[in-house]
Amino acid sequence: MKKRLLTGLQSSGDLHIGNYFGALKPFVDMYEDYESFLMVADYHALTSVREPEVMRQNIYNVVRDYLAAGVDPKKAVIFRQSDNQDHMELGWVFDCMVTVPFLMQGHAYKDKVAKGIEPNAGLFTYPMLQAADITLYDTDVVPVGEDQRQHLEYTREAVRKVNQSYNTEILKEPETLILDAVGIVPGIDGTKMSKSYKNTIPLFGTREEIQKAVMSIVTDSSGERPEHVYAIHKLFKTEAELAPLYEANQGKYKNLKDALAEDIDAHLAPMRERRNQITDADVRAVLADGVARAKEVSGPVLARVRQAIGISL
Amino acid sequence: MKKRLLTGLQSSGDLHIGNYFGALKPFVDMYEDYESFLMVADYHALTSVREPEVMRQNIYNVVRDYLAAGVDPKKAVIFRQSDNQDHMELGWVFDCMVTVPFLMQGHAYKDKVAKGIEPNAGLFTYPMLQAADITLYDTDVVPVGEDQRQHLEYTREAVRKVNQSYNTEILKEPETLILDAVGIVPGIDGTKMSKSYKNTIPLFGTREEIQKAVMSIVTDSSGERPEHVYAIHKLFKTEAELAPLYEANQGKYKNLKDALAEDIDAHLAPMRERRNQITDADVRAVLADGVARAKEVSGPVLARVRQAIGISL
Repeated sequence: MKKRLLTGLQSSGDLHIGNYFGALKPFVDMYEDYESFLMVADYHALTSVREPEVMRQNIYNVVRDYLAAGVDPKKAVIFRQSDNQDHMELGWVFDCMVTVPFLMQGHAYKDKVAKGIEPNAGLFTYPMLQAADITLYDTDVVPVGEDQRQHLEYTREAVRKVNQSYNTEILKEPETLILDAVGIVPGIDGTKMSKSYKNTIPLFGTREEIQKAVMSIVTDSSGERPEHVYAIHKLFKTEAELAPLYEANQGKYKNLKDALAEDIDAHLAPMRERRNQITDADVRAVLADGVARAKEVSGPVLARVRQAIGISL
Repeated sequence: MKKRLLTGLQSSGDLHIGNYFGALKPFVDMYEDYESFLMVADYHALTSVREPEVMRQNIYNVVRDYLAAGVDPKKAVIFRQSDNQDHMELGWVFDCMVTVPFLMQGHAYKDKVAKGIEPNAGLFTYPMLQAADITLYDTDVVPVGEDQRQHLEYTREAVRKVNQSYNTEILKEPETLILDAVGIVPGIDGTKMSKSYKNTIPLFGTREEIQKAVMSIVTDSSGERPEHVYAIHKLFKTEAELAPLYEANQGKYKNLKDALAEDIDAHLAPMRERRNQITDADVRAVLADGVARAKEVSGPVLARVRQAIGISL
């Protein structure tokens, strides 16, 4: 029997190939090995997003991204957190089981306070909504990047607190699954590709947008192999495939960039086309089907909790 | 059109006649002037109640108390907070709209901290769950005792924050309705009747339990009218009705106490008998009917919120 996996999705706007190789592709490569639940974490997003249209578009976009990247909604359960109120109910139960000082150790909260920002109470308690997200599905594993090993410790500790409070194993402690991502994806300036560095190549951009980004890759005029071009190229072809090309075009940066742009486009075009064909109605249908399947799992788990805490009559 | 009223019920165990004249009766006397919603606040109780059986019995008991005291479940909507997940969902939305320092001003939270207790996060954020409880029903008024005038200020301020965040009037600000209670109900020792002072006369006690409590009313041997007996007696009969009795029995404390016990019992027996006839199944039926009617009101209000914050698709 497959282990159950849950991951939360939040739109970070237009994706770039760094997102793809760092998170999307590693997930797509392995999600079928698990009984996978993909939750659009829109109520987590409410801790920071105040513009209703941005919120709405982010929901559509993140589902489109995962479908375009190849996640099959028949194999994975894709649903919205806000469509299943069991999350908010169990989140409240967790809130009642942990102390305020415990939550004050949260990274997101501490970061805001350190910056002199008054965090909202949603940001303060969101680790408990997250604990609910995960435990509602008796989740075995939660995939995270290497840099987020500590990510689930809050959930695990909160689960232990609930179980201890009632002296019975009501909820399951999830394990961390480290995603087998490639290393850091370099941007067009050779540093880590990141929206905030403005050094990205768009994942779902047009042929022209890809071309434009590739032409902007920083090269020096030393006549050597253009390292930043090559570093990105390696994501799309093997070193063996690239060797003859770079051999034949030493110093011919324009040729190499053209070849890279072509290889990127060849790789991304099918995804881009798939994405363009996904309508809003398609997204809504996927989410409606997903939440129905999600509730089939979360309902009995929540019933178990309600029984244990004395809320069931 | 009647204004809408909402009040939260929490069981405080076995009721005494101080509870009755101080809270239950004033409510029963006026709830029909409003479109009244009585919410069993079981998820609020989870901030302090850890014993599942106590939780469960408290739910049954508090519904029985109100039914026995005369609330007609056809006229009022009696339902459980935990049966309507809209409360927890809107509670989360409120959490995202207020800051941690704002919640740190909460009385319940500050009291715990002052006592050196680490409050749980549910206790910390419960004013926002309460704001949700109230605003989900476009509530006009919330009845409170004279000493709780500040009670609703949190809800009102949170409502203003939500409305300001989205620059539109999404939720209604409730008004405070001061309950027209009798003054302080004296206990058998003449001080305020309170469970913690162990000076109570049980509301739903047997004839014998009432008799026993009345016989324990403190009297002095000065030969004057027994003040503590008289003070309680006045709750059940007018001064004009009592005058001849106390005139005829000067110094005869036993006679006066017997008369008081009889008057109390005559008053409470119908309630006690009504209460004894209410089965667990009756309570569940009232709550099932109540939550269906509650959701008819809360559903559209929550939909309005979801639309405004961009969660609706």
